[in-house]
Amino acid sequence: MDSLHVSYRLRRTADEVEAAARAIAIEQTVEIPDGLISDELRDSVVGRVESIDSSDGVDGCFDVVIAYRVELACGQLSQLLNLIYGNVSILPGVRVVDLQLPPVLLSSFRGPACGIDGVRERLAVAGRPLLATALKPRGSTVTELAAVATEFVSGGGDIVKDDHNLVDAELDGFRERVLRCQEALQAANRETGGSAIYLPNISGPAERLDAMLDVLLDAGVAGALVAPMLLGLDATRALAARATAHSAGRFIVMAHPSFSGSYYHDPGHGIAHELLLGTLFRLAGADASVFPHFGGRFAFRREECIAIGERLREPLGELAPASPAPAGGMQLSNIPDMADAYGADAIFLVGGALLGHSGGLREGTRVFREAIENCFPGGAANDTLNVP
Amino acid sequence: MDSLHVSYRLRRTADEVEAAARAIAIEQTVEIPDGLISDELRDSVVGRVESIDSSDGVDGCFDVVIAYRVELACGQLSQLLNLIYGNVSILPGVRVVDLQLPPVLLSSFRGPACGIDGVRERLAVAGRPLLATALKPRGSTVTELAAVATEFVSGGGDIVKDDHNLVDAELDGFRERVLRCQEALQAANRETGGSAIYLPNISGPAERLDAMLDVLLDAGVAGALVAPMLLGLDATRALAARATAHSAGRFIVMAHPSFSGSYYHDPGHGIAHELLLGTLFRLAGADASVFPHFGGRFAFRREECIAIGERLREPLGELAPASPAPAGGMQLSNIPDMADAYGADAIFLVGGALLGHSGGLREGTRVFREAIENCFPGGAANDTLNVP
Repeated sequence: MDSLHVSYRLRRTADEVEAAARAIAIEQTVEIPDGLISDELRDSVVGRVESIDSSDGVDGCFDVVIAYRVELACGQLSQLLNLIYGNVSILPGVRVVDLQLPPVLLSSFRGPACGIDGVRERLAVAGRPLLATALKPRGSTVTELAAVATEFVSGGGDIVKDDHNLVDAELDGFRERVLRCQEALQAANRETGGSAIYLPNISGPAERLDAMLDVLLDAGVAGALVAPMLLGLDATRALAARATAHSAGRFIVMAHPSFSGSYYHDPGHGIAHELLLGTLFRLAGADASVFPHFGGRFAFRREECIAIGERLREPLGELAPASPAPAGGMQLSNIPDMADAYGADAIFLVGGALLGHSGGLREGTRVFREAIENCFPGGAANDTLNVP
Repeated sequence: MDSLHVSYRLRRTADEVEAAARAIAIEQTVEIPDGLISDELRDSVVGRVESIDSSDGVDGCFDVVIAYRVELACGQLSQLLNLIYGNVSILPGVRVVDLQLPPVLLSSFRGPACGIDGVRERLAVAGRPLLATALKPRGSTVTELAAVATEFVSGGGDIVKDDHNLVDAELDGFRERVLRCQEALQAANRETGGSAIYLPNISGPAERLDAMLDVLLDAGVAGALVAPMLLGLDATRALAARATAHSAGRFIVMAHPSFSGSYYHDPGHGIAHELLLGTLFRLAGADASVFPHFGGRFAFRREECIAIGERLREPLGELAPASPAPAGGMQLSNIPDMADAYGADAIFLVGGALLGHSGGLREGTRVFREAIENCFPGGAANDTLNVP
């Protein structure tokens, strides 16, 4: 009988932990009082507490592994969330710290359509991390945003994404921005001989998401930025699946962590950073996952960032690996740390430091690109990009 | 210039709080370094810090009000989440504790299609809280679930909802359950002369949600249970809107809090209980919102529950009020407390205590119904239900 295994970290006393583990196994499956559970249900539906151990290095916590029969997840992402952390999200002191998903469940998910290799192929860049920036600030004219794309690509940048705050009241505004910025990007690509890509932000009323995707597909845009916790994780998967079907599998999805922080900010609650921003976003089809690098303006720790990078790229059934995309106030001085933490298969997302570079955006991009290349000597050997 | 006002509780020192407030106003709008912000952007896009005060009763915290121009929300629910708590969800010690939404923004949302009055009309019950139960446990046969519906309705129950763990791998399983349980409910209604309703759980792949809704509409089912944080808040709104359009505004949406706990469990982070489960769920179209009553097996406090009840029913633009639906291990002994906390316009959701009642489910329902009526003497005067 295939099962998925969820490790919960419980902040409970030694006297409480066994009953707490049992209560979770019931809460997440049959949700009825223990005394009403028939032997048949106990064997076939109720979660099975597999182990209870003192938590490594976390005082006053226990790590509890519960096995759930894989059928309970129905091969569905929303139900997977419900099964592993639906009602128990409402309990204090319960955190999901590991997930082991069996192949039969993983096979229900397409995962990243492009993955790291697909993105590299599209860009024709090997051996070094990719350099990305965001079109911003909100409030800029389309001309100003298109100029950011032009300067960044001319300076040797790889990926231009919309800021996740670029949201339009109407589809027309979205279409205009996409077409103008894509045009600017393509013109700059012709100058450099490169293949930089643009990932507009898909965020709007649920009824409009398909039309927004159609705008991108019609414009020949390479992919999109999507915030799974804003749109819904499974809504994101469905959007990615539709994009994949209409682009011969070439559409790139970059996930943004907006509205996700409450799930992982408390080490005693929620879902571990790397499981949400790594494993679960990857199941939803993220080819890359944006998150704050340590040492920026957010509070992620080094080991959390590295764990996200690992989960995005570890073997996971037949799913392609996805790129970590560290961000959040990155300066030139962060580049060696980022190179060390993630290696070559990553996307370094730099915003304000490029926009505010003393020599201008184009020069700033060149400097950052050079700093990345310096961390990966010889790595750009396959790189056909011709930067002036 | 219309603005929406967000009150953030910041866990910061007196020395830090002003810069922290300013950083949030920038992070949530233009997300560029302060020095790069033009005067024009500062006036037109950046959030405006309206006030900074020591937090009432919370040591070491400050309450900061930031005004955002209403245009920034684009009249869209996903963008509203992004604007009030997108990136700042990733910062430690920031909680949304109040939201003031101007009429022009509220008018973008239909809100509850039925509201408290619409649900009452459908049930022909006035003057007392409604009694609801859940079809469960998962793993039961459809015949067993239908029998729960029969017994509950025969005992005088008002609302039968699916347990949120009742999820099917395929549409056929869902359809069979819906049709059989609805049939059982209608047969029981014919016996009692009442108008009890059934709310099946809509949860499945995003691509299937409309087909699931169609099953309900075809079957003449009164509404559905939906978990907004599993499907996505705006996906829930869109589903509710479609249901409303296809049912002449008579489709009832009951929201379930699965997967929502991380947003409010920490008093120093996230979004206050009553804003997420109250205001925001109501914007998404919830006619009723399920949450754990204090004194059950979850850890909600009395004042949190009362605040949810207030937010669901307070004046909010043109939006109809919605029912609080306290739940979570309710016993007969909780009924007076619930009556006191919520008054008549509520739904009391009782599961295990009915299923495990010593006299059987029908008798248990009768006893709970009587206990409710005893708290609202004379309240059932308009109630045409004929309980045997």
